[in-house]
Amino acid sequence: MLGEDRAVQLWSDNSSGVAPEILQALHEANTGRSRSYGEDAVTARLRTRFAEIFETPVAVFPVVTSTAASAAALALLTPAHGAIFCHPDADVHTRACGAPEFYTGGAKLLPIEGAHGKCEAATLRRTLDALTPHSVHRVRPAALTIAQATECGTVYAAAEIAALTEVARGHDLGVHMDGARFANACARLRRDPADLTWRVGVDVLSFGATNNGAMGAEAVVVFRPELAQRLGHVLKRAGHMPAKMRFVSAQLEAYVGDELWLRNAAHANAMARRLADGLVAVEGTRLIHPVESNAVFAELPQGAVELLEQQGFGFSHRPDDRADTIRVLTAFDTRAEDVDALIAALVRNTAATRRVGLDR
Amino acid sequence: MLGEDRAVQLWSDNSSGVAPEILQALHEANTGRSRSYGEDAVTARLRTRFAEIFETPVAVFPVVTSTAASAAALALLTPAHGAIFCHPDADVHTRACGAPEFYTGGAKLLPIEGAHGKCEAATLRRTLDALTPHSVHRVRPAALTIAQATECGTVYAAAEIAALTEVARGHDLGVHMDGARFANACARLRRDPADLTWRVGVDVLSFGATNNGAMGAEAVVVFRPELAQRLGHVLKRAGHMPAKMRFVSAQLEAYVGDELWLRNAAHANAMARRLADGLVAVEGTRLIHPVESNAVFAELPQGAVELLEQQGFGFSHRPDDRADTIRVLTAFDTRAEDVDALIAALVRNTAATRRVGLDR
Amino acid sequence: MLGEDRAVQLWSDNSSGVAPEILQALHEANTGRSRSYGEDAVTARLRTRFAEIFETPVAVFPVVTSTAASAAALALLTPAHGAIFCHPDADVHTRACGAPEFYTGGAKLLPIEGAHGKCEAATLRRTLDALTPHSVHRVRPAALTIAQATECGTVYAAAEIAALTEVARGHDLGVHMDGARFANACARLRRDPADLTWRVGVDVLSFGATNNGAMGAEAVVVFRPELAQRLGHVLKRAGHMPAKMRFVSAQLEAYVGDELWLRNAAHANAMARRLADGLVAVEGTRLIHPVESNAVFAELPQGAVELLEQQGFGFSHRPDDRADTIRVLTAFDTRAEDVDALIAALVRNTAATRRVGLDR
Amino acid sequence: MLGEDRAVQLWSDNSSGVAPEILQALHEANTGRSRSYGEDAVTARLRTRFAEIFETPVAVFPVVTSTAASAAALALLTPAHGAIFCHPDADVHTRACGAPEFYTGGAKLLPIEGAHGKCEAATLRRTLDALTPHSVHRVRPAALTIAQATECGTVYAAAEIAALTEVARGHDLGVHMDGARFANACARLRRDPADLTWRVGVDVLSFGATNNGAMGAEAVVVFRPELAQRLGHVLKRAGHMPAKMRFVSAQLEAYVGDELWLRNAAHANAMARRLADGLVAVEGTRLIHPVESNAVFAELPQGAVELLEQQGFGFSHRPDDRADTIRVLTAFDTRAEDVDALIAALVRNTAATRRVGLDR
Repeated sequence: MLGEDRAVQLWSDNSSGVAPEILQALHEANTGRSRSYGEDAVTARLRTRFAEIFETPVAVFPVVTSTAASAAALALLTPAHGAIFCHPDADVHTRACGAPEFYTGGAKLLPIEGAHGKCEAATLRRTLDALTPHSVHRVRPAALTIAQATECGTVYAAAEIAALTEVARGHDLGVHMDGARFANACARLRRDPADLTWRVGVDVLSFGATNNGAMGAEAVVVFRPELAQRLGHVLKRAGHMPAKMRFVSAQLEAYVGDELWLRNAAHANAMARRLADGLVAVEGTRLIHPVESNAVFAELPQGAVELLEQQGFGFSHRPDDRADTIRVLTAFDTRAEDVDALIAALVRNTAATRRVGLDR
Repeated sequence: MLGEDRAVQLWSDNSSGVAPEILQALHEANTGRSRSYGEDAVTARLRTRFAEIFETPVAVFPVVTSTAASAAALALLTPAHGAIFCHPDADVHTRACGAPEFYTGGAKLLPIEGAHGKCEAATLRRTLDALTPHSVHRVRPAALTIAQATECGTVYAAAEIAALTEVARGHDLGVHMDGARFANACARLRRDPADLTWRVGVDVLSFGATNNGAMGAEAVVVFRPELAQRLGHVLKRAGHMPAKMRFVSAQLEAYVGDELWLRNAAHANAMARRLADGLVAVEGTRLIHPVESNAVFAELPQGAVELLEQQGFGFSHRPDDRADTIRVLTAFDTRAEDVDALIAALVRNTAATRRVGLDR
Repeated sequence: MLGEDRAVQLWSDNSSGVAPEILQALHEANTGRSRSYGEDAVTARLRTRFAEIFETPVAVFPVVTSTAASAAALALLTPAHGAIFCHPDADVHTRACGAPEFYTGGAKLLPIEGAHGKCEAATLRRTLDALTPHSVHRVRPAALTIAQATECGTVYAAAEIAALTEVARGHDLGVHMDGARFANACARLRRDPADLTWRVGVDVLSFGATNNGAMGAEAVVVFRPELAQRLGHVLKRAGHMPAKMRFVSAQLEAYVGDELWLRNAAHANAMARRLADGLVAVEGTRLIHPVESNAVFAELPQGAVELLEQQGFGFSHRPDDRADTIRVLTAFDTRAEDVDALIAALVRNTAATRRVGLDR
Repeated sequence: MLGEDRAVQLWSDNSSGVAPEILQALHEANTGRSRSYGEDAVTARLRTRFAEIFETPVAVFPVVTSTAASAAALALLTPAHGAIFCHPDADVHTRACGAPEFYTGGAKLLPIEGAHGKCEAATLRRTLDALTPHSVHRVRPAALTIAQATECGTVYAAAEIAALTEVARGHDLGVHMDGARFANACARLRRDPADLTWRVGVDVLSFGATNNGAMGAEAVVVFRPELAQRLGHVLKRAGHMPAKMRFVSAQLEAYVGDELWLRNAAHANAMARRLADGLVAVEGTRLIHPVESNAVFAELPQGAVELLEQQGFGFSHRPDDRADTIRVLTAFDTRAEDVDALIAALVRNTAATRRVGLDR
């Protein structure tokens, strides 16, 4: 059995390391004294760079976690008495310990059902219609948040986003996109970032980098300038105005430079594809969600997960994960040989189990 | 057609007037100067009286709305990073504009399904088990809130409450009972208040009076004294520490004196029963929920609601009420003749409709 | 020594009773069923009436405490990252247990010094200039709140208000007036309400009635309609949307009808004048603040307060009141004979003390 | 005139770079996949290391800004209706945009005067006594926060801390130390960390590293374990639970390893000393505060600051800094030659000015 050191770690992408390009950028940013709190040259360049990437003027605020990015973004769209519509599986709803509630001063997250992690426009419309006309007794519908890619590893097509934001706009909702894995969606869809965001009605984007090669760097990207006015204050009072912000900005600059973000994401996506293809070939295994980015959710034959773990394959579990399922989020540094090793082990184990069954 | 003045108003119980005994008590409390902010003699008597009614020492804080009572109560049980479990139809979740979120500093309300407005212990257990062990990424399960009577007009038997609180206790949840219509439940169940609250595991009760004859008076009743320490501050900073609190206390004193609360509730319950019995005798009409307190939810034949409204019968609607349903919450001052008039009109209308149908 | 019942109670005006006209109005409002949550006829009339009194369209929201009124008003003007400037003695700062902080989501109250409870325009200007240009590291200056009459019993002349609001406006602050004792100020200044509010730059007024004859009724009066949009939600989620709001509205209607509010206030002011005139005639006694409304702050000869209390005169004390001072807030129901009795007792006591001194 | 690149930048220590040892540690921590959210080996080692440094079991939570560290620490000590006592110049009060208010849900910061940035025990005692007995109308005294070193660059002796915490403890306050520059204080006082914290009554310490060589790393150090239970949730919901926490932990590990923190701080302190000594030798210059750590506040001859800036010396200004004062916070990377250059320039300028004066 493998020791922990040698374990093939197929944990979440948030357990990956730092891409060498990004570590290098930290070195280069360490050029002595510099203005603090975002008044530095690196952050200034970053703003220009993001305007180019998104083909429109944007406000950009570097932060260190996706939770902070999304919660602060939602605080721009939602008053304390507001309602935020999201998928029941949305990280901001289920894995953020109430961060949107904290940042908004107590807004309510209301789930909108939909298959495989994606909100459906028709469901959103029905829900909003049922809340119309508004009443002082209810929280005021204020925002829609969708994840791209979703927590299930699926992606929204541009037209799907447009359909959702049209409903949202019709009910005066602001639209936030949780792009903790935005790179994976862009790599998959081969669309310009603008086509997946403001051109289809997104107001604020959490632009993730940490899960895809950065050390700890995300950006709040605001497409409607008037929304951004409060953001500095919101972040400062949350403790997200780092004195040496340039080192967060430097990560982001390296991340979007030379298309590192898309290359890293494409690799992660490919590894997920490779894993999924291998898994479905094993009898008794099935994918729970379509594999469209870097996440693979699979149901394995009974006992297979436990056996793999004993053999040194590491998976991350959440309290509500079922015993016979695995959830793997591949990353920029996931190795093909690790994926192959997992599949090979599963094949071996399954064959052995079958033999045992035949022997009986 | 009837004018609004003459309309038979079968709105919610919250549109009823003030019971004469309670108006009289306000007069009697107006005896010149008195200590303010609850240091008066009436409030002192009220504390003693509630200890008698509940057969145990309790802390009692008079407030003016059920929203304030429940939100403040939940704030005693739930930290800002906590989760409150409630029925999807719970008023604190759907009709309080986020008051629990406000008072707790952003806690999350998580719905526990159950038929006819009642949470089910098995569902609560499954939900809590799925959240065990706790994770820093999730809000911490902190409280269960149930309504007695429920928003659907049903009531929990003492044993049902005990089953829920046992699960709650096993997961370290505090238990709140939203008793905006507690009197109606007590009148129905003919059980001592203690048997429906602390003896079956309730920690804090919102004890309602406004819907049952008071002008604007509720009480937060705390059965675990250590929980009550913060309550004065919580209420004061929410603007619920009235200078002349004695006039709120006086309403409550009159309300629980001479069993007025139970008599009023029994009348309201009887009127609901009378209405329900009349309705189900009409072809094409069915009750949506069992009628166990003062609420009647009924589906009427198509077009019947509109016709009744044209004829001067007033119903209150919520944005998400269906067009062919009525929701009537009878009150202490609902008149039998009004109930009978409604039924008679419905019978007439239905017969006429059938004739029209036959004529065709 | 007098028993508590017979004590001459010169407590705060918030320990007064209810004016008969207002109690009568509660009876008259109790005319059976009515729309709830402010959709009733009384509240509708109240809105019209306030527009007349203030000679301009206003939004009016009845609430039950001055704390709620002022905190909700400030929440309309101040974001969570905002600063509210107030006098160091302001009730909203020192006696509201942090209500403005709660309603705003954590804004900061910053004291502006000034003699006798009144903020000074020059000090406000200096403070604001020192905070210009704004910085993301500081809370954003957002509102000025002044009390009229002040907590010291003084009143702002219209020109003084205008001077303050001009500074405030120049720095983009909204202006709130805490009018818990607005009637006393109007009665003193003999100016139209409009001249003391919106015509001199006030955006939102807390219009008090409780301390001046009501049972528990205040109004948030909003002079800039766009500010009022959120107020219903703010109040509802704080538990300040009473089902039977008409009984709060009825108090206010009676209060402003037939100039009851001004008559009551004029009486209270006269009693304060009478008390002050009597006190200053006693050797060793001096007024701490000018007596311009219904409050008298006086320093008495050493030991005089204790002796008066032993003789049955009741004063209200705050934790930080000095032992040799009294703070009396006269009310609509303060009796001249009680005032005279206090003065007579003080005169007697002082003479006796002097004799004792001479005897030695 | 010097261009910006060549300017001698004597800005705040928060504009310094990253110490090479710490950048190296980031490299070493980048060893492939690892558990996320603090379940990694580096963070585990850090916990052990801090227990050694503080000679007692402690809970340690790495965060990225001092604002977050202090605000989260205060949230452990203070309920929403609480009061936090601090120096009027405290960064948490004046430079945190209301972060403590945000994290606590709206607590109030109440200033305690004292010379040169240090709270005085006698003043604290007087203030607390005046608030005793507590009243529901006031925020509840809950915490004392002091900065070590202070915002004025002074340090508290251990006995001074003990005197403050004794008063605090006597009134049931928790005690927080804002140690954004704790290293500078330790280096100055040559005392063990334990002697300046828990042994003299400190409950929670914000342990700073960012200003003293780290990239972005602070630690919340909790000396009373029961207080730490909520901290994970508090931080997570504020977006301060970084997925790759090991890179924050690695900075801290390198920082406290081999006494880097004390060496860096000693250098910064020495540079401040050198600067102060040079300044006071110049006629017309005086120090505003004693120079006891790495901060120098000085009043320069009229016009001197402007001239130095024209000559390429960079200072950081705050909105309320006076025109003729400079505030320099030296850092681990402040060069002696830069300090000397500043002094030489000032000497030259002053001499020239004097000549001009003589010529006239």
